[in-house]
Amino acid sequence: MKKINFYSGPAILPEEVLQQAKEAITDFAGTGLSILEVSHRSKEFVKVMEDARAMVKEIMALKDDREVLFLQGGGSSQFYMVPMNLLNENETAEYFDTGQWAHGAMEEAKNFGYVHVACSSEKTKYDHIPTEYSVSDSSKYLHLTSNNTVFGTQFHWWPEVKCPTVVDMSSDVFSRQMDFNRFDLIYAGAQKNMGAAGTTVVVVNKNILGTVNRKIPKMLDYRAHIKGESMINTPSAFAVYVSYLTLQWVKKQGLQAIEERNVRKANKLYAAIDCSTLFKGTVAHADRSLMNVCFNIPSGNLPGQDGANINSTEEKFIAFAAKFGIVGIKGYRTVGGFRASIYNAMPESGVDVLIEAMKEFERTQA
Amino acid sequence: MKKINFYSGPAILPEEVLQQAKEAITDFAGTGLSILEVSHRSKEFVKVMEDARAMVKEIMALKDDREVLFLQGGGSSQFYMVPMNLLNENETAEYFDTGQWAHGAMEEAKNFGYVHVACSSEKTKYDHIPTEYSVSDSSKYLHLTSNNTVFGTQFHWWPEVKCPTVVDMSSDVFSRQMDFNRFDLIYAGAQKNMGAAGTTVVVVNKNILGTVNRKIPKMLDYRAHIKGESMINTPSAFAVYVSYLTLQWVKKQGLQAIEERNVRKANKLYAAIDCSTLFKGTVAHADRSLMNVCFNIPSGNLPGQDGANINSTEEKFIAFAAKFGIVGIKGYRTVGGFRASIYNAMPESGVDVLIEAMKEFERTQA
Repeated sequence: MKKINFYSGPAILPEEVLQQAKEAITDFAGTGLSILEVSHRSKEFVKVMEDARAMVKEIMALKDDREVLFLQGGGSSQFYMVPMNLLNENETAEYFDTGQWAHGAMEEAKNFGYVHVACSSEKTKYDHIPTEYSVSDSSKYLHLTSNNTVFGTQFHWWPEVKCPTVVDMSSDVFSRQMDFNRFDLIYAGAQKNMGAAGTTVVVVNKNILGTVNRKIPKMLDYRAHIKGESMINTPSAFAVYVSYLTLQWVKKQGLQAIEERNVRKANKLYAAIDCSTLFKGTVAHADRSLMNVCFNIPSGNLPGQDGANINSTEEKFIAFAAKFGIVGIKGYRTVGGFRASIYNAMPESGVDVLIEAMKEFERTQA
Repeated sequence: MKKINFYSGPAILPEEVLQQAKEAITDFAGTGLSILEVSHRSKEFVKVMEDARAMVKEIMALKDDREVLFLQGGGSSQFYMVPMNLLNENETAEYFDTGQWAHGAMEEAKNFGYVHVACSSEKTKYDHIPTEYSVSDSSKYLHLTSNNTVFGTQFHWWPEVKCPTVVDMSSDVFSRQMDFNRFDLIYAGAQKNMGAAGTTVVVVNKNILGTVNRKIPKMLDYRAHIKGESMINTPSAFAVYVSYLTLQWVKKQGLQAIEERNVRKANKLYAAIDCSTLFKGTVAHADRSLMNVCFNIPSGNLPGQDGANINSTEEKFIAFAAKFGIVGIKGYRTVGGFRASIYNAMPESGVDVLIEAMKEFERTQA
């Protein structure tokens, strides 16, 4: 049976990307060599890197002062690279504390300067994005996490602030249209909507760099990577290649069509959850993520059963869904419940199967 | 025609590794999913990471206090991670300045503490490994680069010192037998002898950690990675998988057999260079690398021709060799001449073809 992949990342990729990637393992760009064994200085790979950077610029319609880099270390490495490159010890950065990774990014920034928590939804287990926040005009930057992969919330509006805005888009980059130029630094680990694990895209406004007075190791200095055209050392070549293929796929469809499909998929799945008397969504409606749909089986929905049975009912649904080919819907390890990640590459038919499994389970098993 | 890949890195991989990697792009470990889209927390991928770490420990016959990590960022990221984790501002680290990357590592260390140049061959364009050196017993560590990829020299002996020794083995790891426990930290970018670009193996003696007083970002702290079993964030999963496959290949043959073949290959190629009246080796015989064989066409070997013609003769040989399927023998961009990288996966027959091309060129073209 064909598997339907709801993993939160590494996550589902378009079938044509997988086929092209597979082909390149033994013959890359007609070289007769594997993409894994070709020099990153070969003209064939240099073109991949150049085209990947150019496609990001084109798809995001970026202004000329924006530079695109493919770095290593995952989104988590940007948690410290951002303050290392932008924040002096006596300066303050603003953080929206809206989820696990937003919080992690904030903690790392404390090693480099002052951190001000502009707002936090930690007390309610990150079940919403606060609309009340305080950001000082004089702060060095504001950091946001556009989509909260763990809890399933997403920004559907943007704070109006005077300082530069930095956004971690790891789990929703290229999933919807927006004015990408309103942000001064965007970063995203590739392994959700733009490829395989092992590379992270960074889009940075050159004008915000060069204002910190600490010594920055060359490999951690955005300016060095810009000067070296994202190749100051051997890049994570295959991961960049998979992003290159995925970007071609994104470009071909356009962000408008991708967004429309993502909205249809999410609306359909949230509607099924809202109609259910068994399953329940876990976050504020206004902030529901189009990418990671989190839900559970609340104890009240199983009359007469206690918490222990809830857990076993949730386990039972995961096993039941597996019979439909569904994998990866177990909620994040610290959260529990279910999380269906429905990134760009998830077809509508995949969501339909999940909805069918939920209805069938509710009708026959619960 | 079958290509023979002499690239210095990313570099030739065993054919069976490529085939297994290719298969996993559409079906990884019987999951019915791609290795590119499977969660790094899935039991299948966790096993890959665990087995890869265990195989490094087994092949190197490491003591219990050694920990194995697969990190991102390439060998170049270890240039700063080593001093960040080991060297306080008031302490001194010793560096053998024996090549381009050794020098680069040294420069990065200066951001963190004092650096003492134990010896240097920079003045003679890194054509040898100095045997005279001065290392203080009280220094925090000594840093060596076991094989100099750019210039083609290699340590065939080890300095006897009292302080911990750190070795960059990026271009010769698993190419020969040695007592790996004599070193306290070993690192190696995977893309030469142990897989594809995108992951770097680090072997560290736990006992040397925890003595610096600076704040270290979590992602740059060896102790955090040890505690997180090399998965504190999403690893470069596919690159780790290719290393896992390559390690299986290495283990199956054993380091003794691999070393014997590498010695045969190198001896054969150096002998051909030494017998030639056209080509000439560029480094001290005692320090010749088993991995990167550097040679050129000195002006004296083309009587009556000037420097400009040397360059064109070298270009001519590269084009001539291409007719034999030979790729990647152009010397490093700042060095010129030729460099044939004959890593573990290069068969003896590949070296034979190169020797044949050299002889044929000398006989008919020069």
